[in-house]
Amino acid sequence: MSTSPPINVTVWHEYRHEKTHKVVADLYPLGIHHAIAEGLRQNDRGGEFNIRTAVLDEPEHRLTQEVLDATDALIWWGHAAHDAVRDDVVERVVRRVWAGMGLIALHSAHFSKPFRWLMGADCALRWREANDKERLWVVNPAHPTAQGLPDYFELESEEMYGEFFGIPQPDELVFISWFTGGEVFRSGCCWHRGMGKVFYFRPGHETYPTYL
Amino acid sequence: MSTSPPINVTVWHEYRHEKTHKVVADLYPLGIHHAIAEGLRQNDRGGEFNIRTAVLDEPEHRLTQEVLDATDALIWWGHAAHDAVRDDVVERVVRRVWAGMGLIALHSAHFSKPFRWLMGADCALRWREANDKERLWVVNPAHPTAQGLPDYFELESEEMYGEFFGIPQPDELVFISWFTGGEVFRSGCCWHRGMGKVFYFRPGHETYPTYL
Amino acid sequence: MSTSPPINVTVWHEYRHEKTHKVVADLYPLGIHHAIAEGLRQNDRGGEFNIRTAVLDEPEHRLTQEVLDATDALIWWGHAAHDAVRDDVVERVVRRVWAGMGLIALHSAHFSKPFRWLMGADCALRWREANDKERLWVVNPAHPTAQGLPDYFELESEEMYGEFFGIPQPDELVFISWFTGGEVFRSGCCWHRGMGKVFYFRPGHETYPTYL
Amino acid sequence: MSTSPPINVTVWHEYRHEKTHKVVADLYPLGIHHAIAEGLRQNDRGGEFNIRTAVLDEPEHRLTQEVLDATDALIWWGHAAHDAVRDDVVERVVRRVWAGMGLIALHSAHFSKPFRWLMGADCALRWREANDKERLWVVNPAHPTAQGLPDYFELESEEMYGEFFGIPQPDELVFISWFTGGEVFRSGCCWHRGMGKVFYFRPGHETYPTYL
Repeated sequence: MSTSPPINVTVWHEYRHEKTHKVVADLYPLGIHHAIAEGLRQNDRGGEFNIRTAVLDEPEHRLTQEVLDATDALIWWGHAAHDAVRDDVVERVVRRVWAGMGLIALHSAHFSKPFRWLMGADCALRWREANDKERLWVVNPAHPTAQGLPDYFELESEEMYGEFFGIPQPDELVFISWFTGGEVFRSGCCWHRGMGKVFYFRPGHETYPTYL
Repeated sequence: MSTSPPINVTVWHEYRHEKTHKVVADLYPLGIHHAIAEGLRQNDRGGEFNIRTAVLDEPEHRLTQEVLDATDALIWWGHAAHDAVRDDVVERVVRRVWAGMGLIALHSAHFSKPFRWLMGADCALRWREANDKERLWVVNPAHPTAQGLPDYFELESEEMYGEFFGIPQPDELVFISWFTGGEVFRSGCCWHRGMGKVFYFRPGHETYPTYL
Repeated sequence: MSTSPPINVTVWHEYRHEKTHKVVADLYPLGIHHAIAEGLRQNDRGGEFNIRTAVLDEPEHRLTQEVLDATDALIWWGHAAHDAVRDDVVERVVRRVWAGMGLIALHSAHFSKPFRWLMGADCALRWREANDKERLWVVNPAHPTAQGLPDYFELESEEMYGEFFGIPQPDELVFISWFTGGEVFRSGCCWHRGMGKVFYFRPGHETYPTYL
Repeated sequence: MSTSPPINVTVWHEYRHEKTHKVVADLYPLGIHHAIAEGLRQNDRGGEFNIRTAVLDEPEHRLTQEVLDATDALIWWGHAAHDAVRDDVVERVVRRVWAGMGLIALHSAHFSKPFRWLMGADCALRWREANDKERLWVVNPAHPTAQGLPDYFELESEEMYGEFFGIPQPDELVFISWFTGGEVFRSGCCWHRGMGKVFYFRPGHETYPTYL
């Protein structure tokens, strides 16, 4: 039997929609970053995670060198304010990935600066505002991110993200999504950059108040 | 301006269903191998292809060393008689791929011996007899096999082949299929083996009498 | 903090040279499989490994379904007797890899049946009986197999294995060897097959009596 | 037989060392860009290439949208003046790669802005000023860039570039270098970005006056 130290997770969120859109605030009274953090806590089987949050409007977006150095995995949620993220902070995040941190880009973070800088690609995709059913198929069942999952799982009401997705060929492709409207999407993709890893995961709107 | 010599194509088919099933014989009076060959000829823009056919019930399945040495690309169509293919011929095909031949495995050739031997994997998949609409999305538009194609193309009435598909991670993934029934499938996959290449392409029932 | 169960390791060896070559018997009085097992035991930080050994001349090469089902990682050492391994046992090993077992092929196991069947490639390489110094460079420092290693490590007196190595493109390339004689070699390569993994590692003669 | 249109090649060079270092000017009286262009012309088997050159000190580094749109392959030679390349021009180059252009980064262009932006990685490497013999081994003989090459080729007197090279895992690895001093290097690497490709090739000092 062997033991592993806890994983230091920082959940970063631009946290603006909650302040300007009542429907979002009602869903995420504390912000989606706290919903994600709470979801992790509820799935912690005992000291696996040390979790903190950080948001855009804190000083240096609260992504100081000190915070990043103490982060093993950075979860990134951004949507409407990608351009408001400072380039010097983005460079700090990118260099920290090269040095070994994991970056998990959720949903619309496909257009975030850290993700795009790390990909070297346009990261554009097909998009449709919709209430499609999405079915995520596991195409790499041996991958750690698919551990314990069934052949597929479903999300009832989703925006559609479809191919062509302008990313570098993933080092590991784990999930492919099917949408009722007729599209497919590479929804779970892993890349290595230096000592670190980048994981893109298409969902991101779904950690609803059940977590709270 | 530069010129390329013609590509020597051998279309191999087990050619048994046409003899035992009237519906198949009506669709492919000369056998599906001739339908494929005819399709290639009609798309030949001038001396691009030298095409021959070969079938299971010819001596050595007509895949003698001489035929293989004169083949640049071998198209393989097999369905119900995979086990009737002689192991020594399979080994010859495999060695010819290692020496530089391309193998294009169509549809149910995912379970053919040459494909499975070259993959080193079980190549199993999810399957449903169906009349699903299939939509093939291009996820690698820069790949030669996607040249000139739109974002996707459709096939109206198809058997369903779905994930998980037990293949090695493709060196290049070109097509992902969407099926009305809710499945996805890696439908166009490329692997390198020695000096040769293997391309798996999911369709195979569709080169219907329009070609003849 | 999280804990992991122990890894069940089976060290397989053809174990013939030790019986016919006095120099080998002197180096490995109990056989190279026991040297490897002993090396693992000495590096076990506390219940990480359950280790057993198996050799060619035991019934079914001691690779029964029961043994394989209880094996997480199978280490394979073969050299001169690859053909003596029964095909039905090889198929059992291959299927067990597809179901999730790891296979670690050492040194001349590049020509072993399980490795070649899983690769679908000829696995040939350049070879020179030599006493070259070999320097193994880490080209993927983030990979688990490189954990804790310096930029390179050296082996003083080695047979030369050189490129071109006829393997499928590795899913992950971890080590590249440099030899005094002027050759290079992809010495640490990882591939995924189904739920399992295959790791090829070039060294294999070096777990000398220091372990015993 | 089929024909292909000519390939439009632009050879870009920072072209500063020739002006400040007499030894470089003596070797490349017209600049290394003209040496490379001349090498291509001498290997043109008849209308394969349309070649132009461009240098840093021309307006917009002569990489206007018009020039880039008329370029299929951009060869990049930079060494000491990477920072002098304007970011808006770099972005134009990167977007043109995404749209289908090939970028061939030679030698010290591993640190050029276009290459680094497309990689999303630090692209650092081990370096030693030296007169090592370099031997480049072909590890992917089926790749177009290795066409017609022997198992390896040698360069007599080279700077050493060694691992670890901080690049994303190449989509295709074609050459690995061996250096007398004991290092190895992934010297020929291919990546896909959008509709375009990037090829890194380690040599770059060697198109000496024999071409002129």
